[in-house]
Amino acid sequence: MFFSKRDLHFQLFEILDSESLTQYSYFQDHNRESFEMVLDAAEQISEKMLRPLLTEMDRNEPQLVDGKIRVHAGMKAIIKKFGEDGWINASFSYEEGGQQIPATVLNAAAFIFQAANYSASVYPFLTTGAANLIRTFGSSTLVETFTPKMYKGEWQGTMALTEPDAGSSLSDITTSAEPTENEHIFKIKGQKIYISCGDHDMCENVVHLMLAKIKGGPIGIKGISLFVVPQRRIRNGSLESNDVLTAGVYHKMGYKGAPIAHLMVGSNDDCLGYLLGEPHKGLSYMFQMMNEARIGVGMNATAIGTAAYYASLAYAKERPQGRKISEKDPNKPQISIINHADVKRMLLFQKSVVEGSLALLLYCSKLSDLIHVEEGEAKERANLLLDLLTPIAKSYPSEMCCLSTSAAVQILGGAGYTTDFPVEQYYREARIHPIHEGTTGIHGLDLLGRKITIQNGKATQIFFGEVSKTLVDASQISDLQPFSEKLQKSLGRAQQATSYLLGLAGKGEVEKYLADATLYLEMFGIITIAWQWLRQSVVAKQNLATAHEADQDFYQGKLMTMRYFYEYELVKVGSLVKRLQSADSVTIEMRSEWF
Amino acid sequence: MFFSKRDLHFQLFEILDSESLTQYSYFQDHNRESFEMVLDAAEQISEKMLRPLLTEMDRNEPQLVDGKIRVHAGMKAIIKKFGEDGWINASFSYEEGGQQIPATVLNAAAFIFQAANYSASVYPFLTTGAANLIRTFGSSTLVETFTPKMYKGEWQGTMALTEPDAGSSLSDITTSAEPTENEHIFKIKGQKIYISCGDHDMCENVVHLMLAKIKGGPIGIKGISLFVVPQRRIRNGSLESNDVLTAGVYHKMGYKGAPIAHLMVGSNDDCLGYLLGEPHKGLSYMFQMMNEARIGVGMNATAIGTAAYYASLAYAKERPQGRKISEKDPNKPQISIINHADVKRMLLFQKSVVEGSLALLLYCSKLSDLIHVEEGEAKERANLLLDLLTPIAKSYPSEMCCLSTSAAVQILGGAGYTTDFPVEQYYREARIHPIHEGTTGIHGLDLLGRKITIQNGKATQIFFGEVSKTLVDASQISDLQPFSEKLQKSLGRAQQATSYLLGLAGKGEVEKYLADATLYLEMFGIITIAWQWLRQSVVAKQNLATAHEADQDFYQGKLMTMRYFYEYELVKVGSLVKRLQSADSVTIEMRSEWF
Repeated sequence: MFFSKRDLHFQLFEILDSESLTQYSYFQDHNRESFEMVLDAAEQISEKMLRPLLTEMDRNEPQLVDGKIRVHAGMKAIIKKFGEDGWINASFSYEEGGQQIPATVLNAAAFIFQAANYSASVYPFLTTGAANLIRTFGSSTLVETFTPKMYKGEWQGTMALTEPDAGSSLSDITTSAEPTENEHIFKIKGQKIYISCGDHDMCENVVHLMLAKIKGGPIGIKGISLFVVPQRRIRNGSLESNDVLTAGVYHKMGYKGAPIAHLMVGSNDDCLGYLLGEPHKGLSYMFQMMNEARIGVGMNATAIGTAAYYASLAYAKERPQGRKISEKDPNKPQISIINHADVKRMLLFQKSVVEGSLALLLYCSKLSDLIHVEEGEAKERANLLLDLLTPIAKSYPSEMCCLSTSAAVQILGGAGYTTDFPVEQYYREARIHPIHEGTTGIHGLDLLGRKITIQNGKATQIFFGEVSKTLVDASQISDLQPFSEKLQKSLGRAQQATSYLLGLAGKGEVEKYLADATLYLEMFGIITIAWQWLRQSVVAKQNLATAHEADQDFYQGKLMTMRYFYEYELVKVGSLVKRLQSADSVTIEMRSEWF
Repeated sequence: MFFSKRDLHFQLFEILDSESLTQYSYFQDHNRESFEMVLDAAEQISEKMLRPLLTEMDRNEPQLVDGKIRVHAGMKAIIKKFGEDGWINASFSYEEGGQQIPATVLNAAAFIFQAANYSASVYPFLTTGAANLIRTFGSSTLVETFTPKMYKGEWQGTMALTEPDAGSSLSDITTSAEPTENEHIFKIKGQKIYISCGDHDMCENVVHLMLAKIKGGPIGIKGISLFVVPQRRIRNGSLESNDVLTAGVYHKMGYKGAPIAHLMVGSNDDCLGYLLGEPHKGLSYMFQMMNEARIGVGMNATAIGTAAYYASLAYAKERPQGRKISEKDPNKPQISIINHADVKRMLLFQKSVVEGSLALLLYCSKLSDLIHVEEGEAKERANLLLDLLTPIAKSYPSEMCCLSTSAAVQILGGAGYTTDFPVEQYYREARIHPIHEGTTGIHGLDLLGRKITIQNGKATQIFFGEVSKTLVDASQISDLQPFSEKLQKSLGRAQQATSYLLGLAGKGEVEKYLADATLYLEMFGIITIAWQWLRQSVVAKQNLATAHEADQDFYQGKLMTMRYFYEYELVKVGSLVKRLQSADSVTIEMRSEWF
């Protein structure tokens, strides 16, 4: 067991009421049964094809051979299956060959794939993101030329942003685009690094969605354009080299099954890029893909954390070691370690992190569905709320699943440190997520420096409004009332801290305002997940009375995990707020030469 | 740069006044110069022999070939060097061929080796620990038979405790010892797992200090005896097999350069073990080695954390990315990332963890020197204080260096996740320390369940007395007074939490009393390190006025890091205490079937 279908059903059908989406015409052909079928299909493919390769792909990492990256041969069948079964364009419209499946359901399915084998799951969904950009902003020629092959999985899609001197600071990219006689076609020249699936031998072609600067354009972010840069371009109906060379493959701590490439673009002055949309608007287009990818990263982290949680749970139930604290008789048999409070604490920690994160991520997925089908005020509210929540939905799971996979390793003890069990792999794989798609530090700045203040704090108000609804619901259930009060109190503190920091911004003390943005993000993340736990608890409490036995266990587990979260995690808000409101600017005053 | 000699000198000569040890006759031949020479020698060997193999040993892990574990060939010269230069028995008396060097100085030297190449450093110091047990509790025959070869590095020493069904619960070992006609010789039979350096091809013989139960002896811990069990025994002056077979070598996430063996002992009924000391006292003997090893593990973690800190510091100074928050002009050149407050925060975090831990570990080392040379009350005080501090000195660095190496990875971003830089290796290697030599959970139980209450809390009183001295010193320096007050306040809270928990114990609620022992350990660790930072700051402040320029930077760094620790780490005590004093027993009430 590497995930819980029961929990996915709880999230989709008891918490989020995903069926309500079928009221909208875009989703009208669907119903609960079809949603469940999507999950079942994902489970089957995962168990049959992805899961068996989890360890193998980690131990046989991609290699660069004669300028081509060779990946695990088993990926061929997996990619083909994803293409054939329509996973890559499943959310797209019928006209585009898609199935108009809501993101809420598709992301739940993706979560299953990711929990089964994170590296393998990356290939198809990168293609989805790239194809989505082309179909949204591209001309009909671009759409017709590139997307059909991508949907089938024959051509791999990527996002090609990072360069040796431009990672977090994208405005500093130097890859150039020189106009040709065709206003849509440019000659591209530069280097791209850390490109996931940037080259591999299980596809016919790679379609890079690449940021570059048109020569003579504005400096900085305003001069960035987005290009479709295929590895091989079409000429007279067949493929020829487009001068995108693979200079290297990165060897990494984890996430080894996916090839990460270093690309030399246009070294021979023969790389053509097809402008997507208008010149100089590349970054805003790319943000569509990045925002989706950020939710995706949060989901990846959560999926890895979930697989680690279940691995350590199984071990804890089976492994005998020690006796009850109160039992001094060495003649008594040993008990399973799940009976030790400290082991239960580590399991509850993991469960609270991964199920809390999953709840938030599916909540965000539903917001993106609503953005797609709603109009006017409702659409705008969903948009603002999703904007605000994106840095949290990306960073909280990413940071916390490093710790939760660590707890899984700890439960297995010495065994957990060996390659005999999968938890060490999960620990290594989890570590990428606080880094890619914007580091945690970048998301802290995004949240505190941008999202909080958007439209005079309108997004924040919407968020507080949604939390307040849950507080009211919970306060009407006597067992939950104390938790409603605790969250209310923490929320109040968070608001105080926010006012304090915005006060600094108002006085022009920008550096002080943002110095602890990462801690602010952490605080906001804890409160958001506490809110998600209270939402889940309201439903669990309501459904508990009439539930059959197995479900009673499930709901009890939810309520206990909520209690864990409030007792052990939410209390951290106090310390964070204390630091956030401190006048000591030690991290600003510290000097390089004092280290 | 992978460590700071300046900081080692600061710890040894400015904080701990190690020279004062030379007043004792055992150490009288030493002086500051000879101490510095020890450190210089360690640095030279590290740079010349250990450091160059750091990456290689990680990438070429030990393999079992024809029943023998093959390790990196470079270990031969390293082990020989350690033997020839007298490192293995350097602390032992002149009569034993040793150099009577204080543990304080030797542990500082070991720290250098460990920071250079953790895996390589393990081989010789395991032999030291094993030899130390033999010389302390063994008959002259055992001492003469085994230790000379061990001192030379020709024979490897190990501690062989863990078995498939007995890890944290040592009382459950089943390896048996059957008496023979010679009352000192037993036939040993059983299995041992996770034995560091339990077999390798760079030594002539392996000497296991092995726990086993003499048949017919008491059940549980009271029936455990300690044996010297060589891999090959001496017969007529030459070595012959002693029926200790290597069944396997563990493949691990990190710490790959050291061979960890699975041993089959006496499978052919032909394994002889030599009883060390008296029957049934094995565990108390072993605790001598374990207590040393626990300080050693804390030091290993700190050393790895230190190497990671300096790797990320160098990167942060060189890597240009982004601009000041207040700088909006993209024409301005990028600045080094060390200028970003969030990067400085991550560097200060690492510095505060590794230098705070080093200070505590060398403080503990000095206590062990005092125990060695002192008498009466002074000896007993040192003994009690070291007993109390050992779980903290083992666990705080172990837990926190997982996080500090993670911060190092984060500073390098994508680069940090690749094998192009060493930080990912440090991250993997750090993860073993919360597991071996007693998991963090076990140390929590040790601290709260045993050490706190020892002799009616005498150890705790001594600890509070020592902290109070530092508080008084700091309160007399106006800049430090606020920090003295903060620590005083946190200490008061910790005492309250302690009283609350002991109250539960008094009421017989043992499970509740110890359920959060791990959190109690965390709280105690933070306070202990805060104390070490205040101690360092008192000296830094005193010496700052008359210091030359480079030293001014050094002392400023100390004072800033102390401020960081109080602002960002000590504040966590509030949340921990809140949880520790909560009446909600969620981790006890949670049931297996609810997960």
